[in-house]
Amino acid sequence: MSGNQGSEAGRPRLIALDWGTSSLRGFLMGKDAGIIDQRASSHGIQNLPEPGIPGFEKAFAALCGPWLARWPDLPVVAGGMVGSAQGWVEAPYVPCPADVAELARHAGRVTTADGRTILIAPGVIDDPADAPPDVMRGEEIQIAGALADNPSLAERASIIMPGTHSKWVSIAASRITHFDTYMTGEVFAVMTTHSILGRLMTSPAEGTTADPAAADAAFCQGVLAARESRAGDLLNQLFSVRTLGLTKRLSGLVLRDYLSGLLIGQELTSGLARLKQSSATLPPIVLIGDDRLCSSYRRAMALFDITPAALLGNTAPSGLFRFAAATGMLQRA
Amino acid sequence: MSGNQGSEAGRPRLIALDWGTSSLRGFLMGKDAGIIDQRASSHGIQNLPEPGIPGFEKAFAALCGPWLARWPDLPVVAGGMVGSAQGWVEAPYVPCPADVAELARHAGRVTTADGRTILIAPGVIDDPADAPPDVMRGEEIQIAGALADNPSLAERASIIMPGTHSKWVSIAASRITHFDTYMTGEVFAVMTTHSILGRLMTSPAEGTTADPAAADAAFCQGVLAARESRAGDLLNQLFSVRTLGLTKRLSGLVLRDYLSGLLIGQELTSGLARLKQSSATLPPIVLIGDDRLCSSYRRAMALFDITPAALLGNTAPSGLFRFAAATGMLQRA
Repeated sequence: MSGNQGSEAGRPRLIALDWGTSSLRGFLMGKDAGIIDQRASSHGIQNLPEPGIPGFEKAFAALCGPWLARWPDLPVVAGGMVGSAQGWVEAPYVPCPADVAELARHAGRVTTADGRTILIAPGVIDDPADAPPDVMRGEEIQIAGALADNPSLAERASIIMPGTHSKWVSIAASRITHFDTYMTGEVFAVMTTHSILGRLMTSPAEGTTADPAAADAAFCQGVLAARESRAGDLLNQLFSVRTLGLTKRLSGLVLRDYLSGLLIGQELTSGLARLKQSSATLPPIVLIGDDRLCSSYRRAMALFDITPAALLGNTAPSGLFRFAAATGMLQRA
Repeated sequence: MSGNQGSEAGRPRLIALDWGTSSLRGFLMGKDAGIIDQRASSHGIQNLPEPGIPGFEKAFAALCGPWLARWPDLPVVAGGMVGSAQGWVEAPYVPCPADVAELARHAGRVTTADGRTILIAPGVIDDPADAPPDVMRGEEIQIAGALADNPSLAERASIIMPGTHSKWVSIAASRITHFDTYMTGEVFAVMTTHSILGRLMTSPAEGTTADPAAADAAFCQGVLAARESRAGDLLNQLFSVRTLGLTKRLSGLVLRDYLSGLLIGQELTSGLARLKQSSATLPPIVLIGDDRLCSSYRRAMALFDITPAALLGNTAPSGLFRFAAATGMLQRA
């Protein structure tokens, strides 16, 4: 639950909380966003020790108590679903274009029972005239971290954040100028778990492992089918997960990979077309997120002749540090 | 459970069973596919009174016993999932192009414990060289009925059968020449029930009813968004069900209608593009299925400037009669 990762970061300056739906992660941070210590708990906002405000108080005290006992005056920031309508306090979405200074200007603020103030990062809304609105909460903090740690991206980049709700985020001059959400991960999960498509999916027999080459071939088959698809075809292509299984052309062991390829391929088809439409030359494309998922996206992108400029891991701690700095609270500490 | 619908059909000639996953419907039929009586039970193949063959025997005896007591020598046919790998006996898919004579040539055959033979309709597989295979089971019987009852469609038509797995079926010279399945209904169901999209959906307060004009407007908004979409966009558009709800631009009462419009619109975008690609002039388009669902499809088609040539109800009894006739069993009766 704890691990010293950066003694060079010196004395603690900040407690940063990445507080999502299903987990709470805390970072004890020193100068230059160095991580001195970290702790995690399962107290996501939908899994608090008790309902409502007291639940947030208790989860916070349980995670950060050991740090605060030693450094009682450390400032605290939090980002993620903790700032949603179901969170500790709602920090309403700020509109695009938005940079970390804008996030700081619209920080939410909660005061604990013992008088401590915590600043909470707002989400971001993109609300173009010609399309439905889109929202993010948590990703804006990861982006702030990615741009601070990789200054070359700040001028112009497209950041893809694969996941339950993948985000495609356009960056210009350090600001989030536009973004699109794709429900790729959630559609994969519900179709696998709750639709007929899961019925033919199998797992390797006890003591054996999946064949990586067969899984990769099925994944690529899905990506290529999606790449050649036209508008509306996904609802038809999904059924091929069943028919390729029924006719034994794909083993039940790789139907998940094929479905994953179909869905990621659909996301890339749409996302890349939109990028190409919005500018003559593609911006550098960066992937942020879980290693394994980013690798799948990189594999799929190769089939579109696209190479990501970088794959970044968890940039949330760095982003929370930049957010705290932008609020001015680190000067006061 | 019983109702005399056609005394002009004269003496009974056939018992026809429409035996699906969740229900079993029996029809006592006279000449020219006239329905003399009908009975139904909940003994679909996944809801039998006991597992395996004895379950099929018992469900059959319970439904048809009263008829067979009076007319013990009536021939019996069945169609639908009863002929699947999980059915009473598997009647393997016959390849396209297929007409009712081809279905009859490949009928499955099961003999009950008391020596009665029941013929079971096979499904159909479309297996083009340049695309994944597609399968149907049950719809081929509805199509046989539709074509027999509406001879003008037999020369050339496109039959759309909305549902859990919508079918788009091309007909030429009384044969099924090609078809595509769209998982529209199932995606609607799982996204509504199991994804985040259902969270903001609400129902009218007790004692009040939904506003039909608002529901229609939301449905059409979804259809039009889908109509303007490009390849891969669905995974992004799905998220607008959430954001339009979050921002209160659509009431929770009509989010289901909007999602329905998005999905049906995606299906129509793809299906109509494929029809237009395959011939210079669109064939007559016929809808077969549940009244309410067919009305939604007709409404959506109007936004594509398409008018269906007909909306047909349940053509399965007629199709089972044509199937029985094609096997020759009615002559022997």
